Amino acid sequence: MADESTCAPLTRASVFNAHEIIKSRIHKTPVLTSRFLNQLASTEQGTDAFKARGAFHAIEKLKQEPGWLENDGAKKGVVCFSAGNHAQAIALAARESQITAHIVMPETSSPVKIQSVREYGANLTLCGRFEREACAAETMAKTGARLIPPFDHPDVILGQGTAALELQEEVKELNAIVSPCSGGGLLAGTALSCEGTGIRVYGAEPEFEGADDGRRGFLSGERVTHVKSNTIADGLMGKLGVLPWEIIYERRLVDMMYAVTEENILDAMKLIFERLKLVVEPAAAVPLAVVLYNEEFRGMVEREAGEKGWDVGIILSGGNVGVGRISDLFARK
Amino acid sequence: MADESTCAPLTRASVFNAHEIIKSRIHKTPVLTSRFLNQLASTEQGTDAFKARGAFHAIEKLKQEPGWLENDGAKKGVVCFSAGNHAQAIALAARESQITAHIVMPETSSPVKIQSVREYGANLTLCGRFEREACAAETMAKTGARLIPPFDHPDVILGQGTAALELQEEVKELNAIVSPCSGGGLLAGTALSCEGTGIRVYGAEPEFEGADDGRRGFLSGERVTHVKSNTIADGLMGKLGVLPWEIIYERRLVDMMYAVTEENILDAMKLIFERLKLVVEPAAAVPLAVVLYNEEFRGMVEREAGEKGWDVGIILSGGNVGVGRISDLFARK
Repeated sequence: MADESTCAPLTRASVFNAHEIIKSRIHKTPVLTSRFLNQLASTEQGTDAFKARGAFHAIEKLKQEPGWLENDGAKKGVVCFSAGNHAQAIALAARESQITAHIVMPETSSPVKIQSVREYGANLTLCGRFEREACAAETMAKTGARLIPPFDHPDVILGQGTAALELQEEVKELNAIVSPCSGGGLLAGTALSCEGTGIRVYGAEPEFEGADDGRRGFLSGERVTHVKSNTIADGLMGKLGVLPWEIIYERRLVDMMYAVTEENILDAMKLIFERLKLVVEPAAAVPLAVVLYNEEFRGMVEREAGEKGWDVGIILSGGNVGVGRISDLFARK
Repeated sequence: MADESTCAPLTRASVFNAHEIIKSRIHKTPVLTSRFLNQLASTEQGTDAFKARGAFHAIEKLKQEPGWLENDGAKKGVVCFSAGNHAQAIALAARESQITAHIVMPETSSPVKIQSVREYGANLTLCGRFEREACAAETMAKTGARLIPPFDHPDVILGQGTAALELQEEVKELNAIVSPCSGGGLLAGTALSCEGTGIRVYGAEPEFEGADDGRRGFLSGERVTHVKSNTIADGLMGKLGVLPWEIIYERRLVDMMYAVTEENILDAMKLIFERLKLVVEPAAAVPLAVVLYNEEFRGMVEREAGEKGWDVGIILSGGNVGVGRISDLFARK
């Protein structure tokens, strides 16, 4: 540094000059704003970002449907069944548009999620684990509410695909995007967002106890219709839905699905935690685990990309994990 | 959502339309790029963001100093003594400018930090805990290298102040910024960046075992010159330096310093973890702890701001914490 006697004066203008000097060298520090911190005294809860995109889009489209609002749609409302994030997203999106939300949740849902749906002002019905669809159907018959499924609908899928659109806007010349896959709405939306761009899209799943139903379907050519796994990536235990399957597999908008072990997922989660400084749940670490540890994926990239390599985008979604669970997951690490 | 038969076609153009519909409703998802992940196979290490700002600025200014480069400055190099982040920041910034870096670290420094400084290609000298300054002086005499102190220099302070400048550019009409304070470079730089703007600047410290030397100095009117604390906010154990003290206290650019308990720090850290989904070390949680839990700060804001409240910016810095330490810190929570 310069001799202290010749230094710039210690003023605000000198800070601007300092910024000019170093700005090409440093990463811009992200500014975070938090609705949560702003409303700490209230009961606001976060919801998973991509679920909210699907929910907001579905509800906006419903409001635009000819006759729906005029025929008392807002009062009849919407209905969904979900054990968690989708329920919260619909409750939030409906409240912001002053639309009635009927939410059917299994009794076994986490008390925190049940509480947050209540606090959004939704009409909550708790039901047995295998009665959700019947219960939702009953609510629809009684109220005239419209069903919003968690992934198996065009408006939900298109809304969820907008996250990958923003990624493409911010990072030019991506070669590929790896997205997590459970019901498949996010992966199908991501694939649609890349259609015709040349960006390849891959799906990522946990493999434990057959949670890789998407991959197995991909390899056999037939959608798997039953899954039961206790993977630590509990956000990715669902089975791939009918409409996502059409987009992902039948329209060939996804090139391949890859699956990773529980150990791979924990390793990737630890990296995200310690290097990216982000708190994510195990499910969110699955795409990075594919990129770093899946030999089949890595071999494919090597063959396709050659020495130049690829710029790969990864979708990180899901932060539903507290300090307690982190301690439990890494006790053995 | 709209009746499925009337939905938009499932194409990329429809994803753009969906984005138009929802973008005012959603938080834009931040795009993260990681030098670390890009170089996973190599030995790259992260360094603390604000330390890097100070280091890059100091080194750029040195390169601009008339005669320094011409007189073999790059080969003679720079020297610093530091147990951690400043050492890493200087080693990185020097390497990027192809300048020799002589780093003096106490033998008791963490092996990870010693290793990372080595991997940046710096000349490393390990010394006894109380021999750092003598050891650095010896290096200077032998090599002709220039000393870059961790906070007590204008170029370092101005560089560190650029983070708050970016905050002001992104968030207009802030009423106040709360910055952590250890040696005081970041707080002093932040204060300079706000000079004349009307934005008030406050310092935040841990209070455990007298780590709040800045606050105690503020209250007594005299800089405290000895501090020894084992606060969990180990990034904030240093004592306030001479030049930062001038800026902070004598020039009255900081309105007040506030201190928080260990319990407050853990509570704020848990919130940052579970709600902002960010991994930070205890030191980084101190400013939020002031804003949320310090009665004196809160009373002051109530009096000054009235019912409208204030928009307060918080500087979060320091993520030097692994999954193991998180488990230890929250074992009792």
